[in-house]
Amino acid sequence: MNALTPAVSTGPLPASRKIHKSGVLHPQIRVPMREISVHPTAGEPPVIVYDPSGPYTDPTVETSIENGLARLRHEWIIARGDVEAYDGRHVQPEDNGFAVGERLTPEFPIRNRPLRAKAGKAVTQLAYARAGIITPEMEFVAIRENLGRENLGREILRGKLQRDGEAFGAAIPDFVTPEFVRDEVARGRAIIPANINHPESEPMIIGRNFLVKINANIGNSAVTSSMAEEVEKMVWAIRWGADTVMDLSTGRNIHNIRDWIVRNAPVPIGTVPLYQALEKVNGIAEDLTWEVYRDTLVEQAEQGVDYFTIHAGVRLHYIPLTVGRVTGIVSRGGSIMAKWCLHHHRESFLYEHFAEICDICRAYDVSFSLGDGLRPGSIADANDAAQFAELETLGELTQIAWAKDCQVMIEGPGHVPMHKIKENMDKQLAVCGEAPCYTLGPLTTDIAPGYDHITSGIGAAMIGWFGTAMLCYVTPKEHLGLPDRNDVKIGVITYKIAAHAADLAKGHPAAKTRDDALSRARFEFRWEDQFNLSLDPETARSFHDQTLPKEAHKLAHFCSMCGPKFCSMRISHDIRAEAQKEGMAAMAAKYREGGDLYVPAEESGAPLMSEAQEPS
Amino acid sequence: MNALTPAVSTGPLPASRKIHKSGVLHPQIRVPMREISVHPTAGEPPVIVYDPSGPYTDPTVETSIENGLARLRHEWIIARGDVEAYDGRHVQPEDNGFAVGERLTPEFPIRNRPLRAKAGKAVTQLAYARAGIITPEMEFVAIRENLGRENLGREILRGKLQRDGEAFGAAIPDFVTPEFVRDEVARGRAIIPANINHPESEPMIIGRNFLVKINANIGNSAVTSSMAEEVEKMVWAIRWGADTVMDLSTGRNIHNIRDWIVRNAPVPIGTVPLYQALEKVNGIAEDLTWEVYRDTLVEQAEQGVDYFTIHAGVRLHYIPLTVGRVTGIVSRGGSIMAKWCLHHHRESFLYEHFAEICDICRAYDVSFSLGDGLRPGSIADANDAAQFAELETLGELTQIAWAKDCQVMIEGPGHVPMHKIKENMDKQLAVCGEAPCYTLGPLTTDIAPGYDHITSGIGAAMIGWFGTAMLCYVTPKEHLGLPDRNDVKIGVITYKIAAHAADLAKGHPAAKTRDDALSRARFEFRWEDQFNLSLDPETARSFHDQTLPKEAHKLAHFCSMCGPKFCSMRISHDIRAEAQKEGMAAMAAKYREGGDLYVPAEESGAPLMSEAQEPS
Repeated sequence: MNALTPAVSTGPLPASRKIHKSGVLHPQIRVPMREISVHPTAGEPPVIVYDPSGPYTDPTVETSIENGLARLRHEWIIARGDVEAYDGRHVQPEDNGFAVGERLTPEFPIRNRPLRAKAGKAVTQLAYARAGIITPEMEFVAIRENLGRENLGREILRGKLQRDGEAFGAAIPDFVTPEFVRDEVARGRAIIPANINHPESEPMIIGRNFLVKINANIGNSAVTSSMAEEVEKMVWAIRWGADTVMDLSTGRNIHNIRDWIVRNAPVPIGTVPLYQALEKVNGIAEDLTWEVYRDTLVEQAEQGVDYFTIHAGVRLHYIPLTVGRVTGIVSRGGSIMAKWCLHHHRESFLYEHFAEICDICRAYDVSFSLGDGLRPGSIADANDAAQFAELETLGELTQIAWAKDCQVMIEGPGHVPMHKIKENMDKQLAVCGEAPCYTLGPLTTDIAPGYDHITSGIGAAMIGWFGTAMLCYVTPKEHLGLPDRNDVKIGVITYKIAAHAADLAKGHPAAKTRDDALSRARFEFRWEDQFNLSLDPETARSFHDQTLPKEAHKLAHFCSMCGPKFCSMRISHDIRAEAQKEGMAAMAAKYREGGDLYVPAEESGAPLMSEAQEPS
Repeated sequence: MNALTPAVSTGPLPASRKIHKSGVLHPQIRVPMREISVHPTAGEPPVIVYDPSGPYTDPTVETSIENGLARLRHEWIIARGDVEAYDGRHVQPEDNGFAVGERLTPEFPIRNRPLRAKAGKAVTQLAYARAGIITPEMEFVAIRENLGRENLGREILRGKLQRDGEAFGAAIPDFVTPEFVRDEVARGRAIIPANINHPESEPMIIGRNFLVKINANIGNSAVTSSMAEEVEKMVWAIRWGADTVMDLSTGRNIHNIRDWIVRNAPVPIGTVPLYQALEKVNGIAEDLTWEVYRDTLVEQAEQGVDYFTIHAGVRLHYIPLTVGRVTGIVSRGGSIMAKWCLHHHRESFLYEHFAEICDICRAYDVSFSLGDGLRPGSIADANDAAQFAELETLGELTQIAWAKDCQVMIEGPGHVPMHKIKENMDKQLAVCGEAPCYTLGPLTTDIAPGYDHITSGIGAAMIGWFGTAMLCYVTPKEHLGLPDRNDVKIGVITYKIAAHAADLAKGHPAAKTRDDALSRARFEFRWEDQFNLSLDPETARSFHDQTLPKEAHKLAHFCSMCGPKFCSMRISHDIRAEAQKEGMAAMAAKYREGGDLYVPAEESGAPLMSEAQEPS
């Protein structure tokens, strides 16, 4: 490995094993999941959880950032017979912000000829779904979403398990079939973002009737960060659970950095092409043109970007609606387009050329993320006329994109107080034909910069419950600066919490398994199992060990919160064991005879308070 | 100051001044608030925020932990003519867990004779309210809750401002009058926890029609912590916004540590008397007796504890309902009482002697916090039969306590998935006669130990919105160990977020002022103002400074997230300034003539990217 190749985090999480399930319709597919084992004394099966972390957590696979990941989808794409390889566009100096010499990030060492649709073909998952075809990607996703719950499905059908939740009209099946996936995609109610030029990606689905997904944002800015840091942030983000990653770079080397990211990303990569277009015109918004933008779309589609955020809803006549706002336009793309429109006193070129943008996207299967350029950036601006005017246009654009077989998701707010969140969901579903919704938070109050992962985690959990399909994370650095690696992890864990809380509340049949397994481990003082089943085993263990660090403490039937005499779970355990063995009356009689239910610590092997000793 | 006296955090928060408003009905009262000033160029008044931090943040007051705080309510209490001083109970060795010598925490140096009600008198705020009396405490609270919004009230009445929220039947007034407070207390819909032996406390109110409050838990355990750490935790917790503090100590020195805490606490202090009673019988739950417990109630009432958590709803015949649970009984007090009941095969002595407990509480004005001993400790156990059976009993006990003029609040869960949260609120309001609700979270998923401040912050924000009056915080250490000072701060900030998000969603007229002021500061790049108006100015500033540390950067119209070219707020600002000056058409014409709206950094004084220089 050469000195310039970034070091990334590899290796499995504790007690975890990467497993693969094979396809039936498409036997060549191998769908990854993560299996967390618990202590044999528990007598419980391993818990299977969803796993976007890719080969980096598979110790049987040697990863090398210089080589990129295996091109696992390549054969599937070629086998469809509807694409052709071609020479592609040449990299231009402006693609990298005119960086030269030492300031220029090295090119990714391997260059494949890009693919594009043969003339007249639409190579999108939507087109295939409408044609009644179940692609390998669709079956992959179906297996992935089931998490091995085939057995669970049968138990539900036999009436042994109850679905418990409030799904607000969502229709989550007990068991996901490839046909169900095809149908959801055909209806536009879900998307599988999978550019034909990103064959390294492990397919995933974004839709209201599937597990709620999360996105992590990375990318440099003019002020800070580098290719090495950004590639590691991507690997780090997916390690902790990010389902997609957006590269929002706005500094130099945008093209080359993106190559390194996409070639090494097992998850879909999103971008906002407008940023690179702006860099190409030296940061002067007024100098943007459709031609520069179009060229950027092709450049990024050839690289393999899986979805584009496009702020085509920021129309000239909406801009005055923002003048009375407290925080104006807070979307980078939205503000850039607004400036362009006002300067030229013309309709947005994104809006006017939208059909041509569709033609590009359908030739590579780049999904639309229709941008919320007029989202509210403060509580005061929530649900205002500007925001909902743009939403109406996004609804209109959704129909145009669908007519051209393009996959679409709709971006959402922002800053929204709790009582206004549901209205956002209801409107978006109605106006945009049930296209999947993808929100940023929302933040439920403005008063806590430094903690906006929390102010927004509250809103994200709620809007995920109401039907939002993907939640874009917010880190502690929001409003203050570019997030570093630590911030990325905190943002991801926070949004995994929000997404999972939403799945639970929707009654997703696979969700509660993990909560129950962890709670049983907690109740039985299987400390290692509790840590290993949690979203962040290292932090859980380290917090526990701050006050009880010895190995013997992991056998203790208490922690330092309450100590041995006051641990309610230990006391409950005693009560229950007796009740189950002998029945209540007999137990009471035994107590009266003087039986001692307090198990002295020496017997259980647990240390007494601070005089902990290693077990013999 | 002697070497054993704890050092505590003092001094105002940035740009903040302690102000006091005087009473009208009771001119002697001085109600503290915090005034945060913004930069003069903003042309905006200071923002007034609620302030529970006491004299520690008042630079005009010299605090000395050895002397305790000023006994500000003493005269008010004496003036009512219904209490008498008496010799009080002597401290017993068991009160401090038989600690001796160096292990015994020193006694608090000042001992006042405790007060109690004269024979036949009830000295509770509820009794006074029912008698039509507006006490100094009630007026104090009314002024405190208004936060100087008298003017706001008049603007609402003139129709200039709209109330915007969904209060689910709560009735938050535009402007709080002392009579409104009296009426809410008389109805039992709010409580003012204020033991006559805690004259140092600055009165506060807990009720659905007031600002949502938060509690921080402190206290040692057998495993760790000390008096000095616990006193500092109390001062630290209120500095960041805790409205009450519970001392949940379960180790040695419970009595003496509590003295140091209460004498120095400007906020109500709560306890769970059962813990100390258990220590007095050497940790053997079966050896508890009503007599030991009664003695502990008197001991703590004489010290000045403002509210008691009492698990009188854990009845013998409910215990079998917990046997099938995943996590049994997770309440310390609940599990201790369950063990006692089963051993003796008798009804809970708390339940049986409840009327006598009321007689004690009414003689000192100790409020009840009717404990949720059977709260669910896992998603699987949420809203089960055990939990709601106890709630029915709490409803019954509320009526008994009210009949004896005792103030009551009702504790709530726990671990509850989002779709089951509203049911908790609705049931509690119906069953307990609208007595204020006080929940722990609830946690919306079990899978994130290490982040349970977040899993629970989500549920707390929601249940606060639905009507819960006080939210008991959860720290990152929940389930793992005793929280330290850092954990206390993170827990408090998280719960301030939840409480404020709830106030906003309920349409509380005073809430949005702070969000709007901060968002204006953000939009106008008044960085210091944005930090100073936030819940944690130090952290916000430090996060910003990680990538842009120079003083000149605080004038920058960007941060490191986007850099100068991409800052949407800077771009918005340019657009708006032009639109407001000249109108839209004229602006477009000006752009076409070549006017440059990009203000070069040198002119604005903001640094160019990384080449920041100090302003000349």
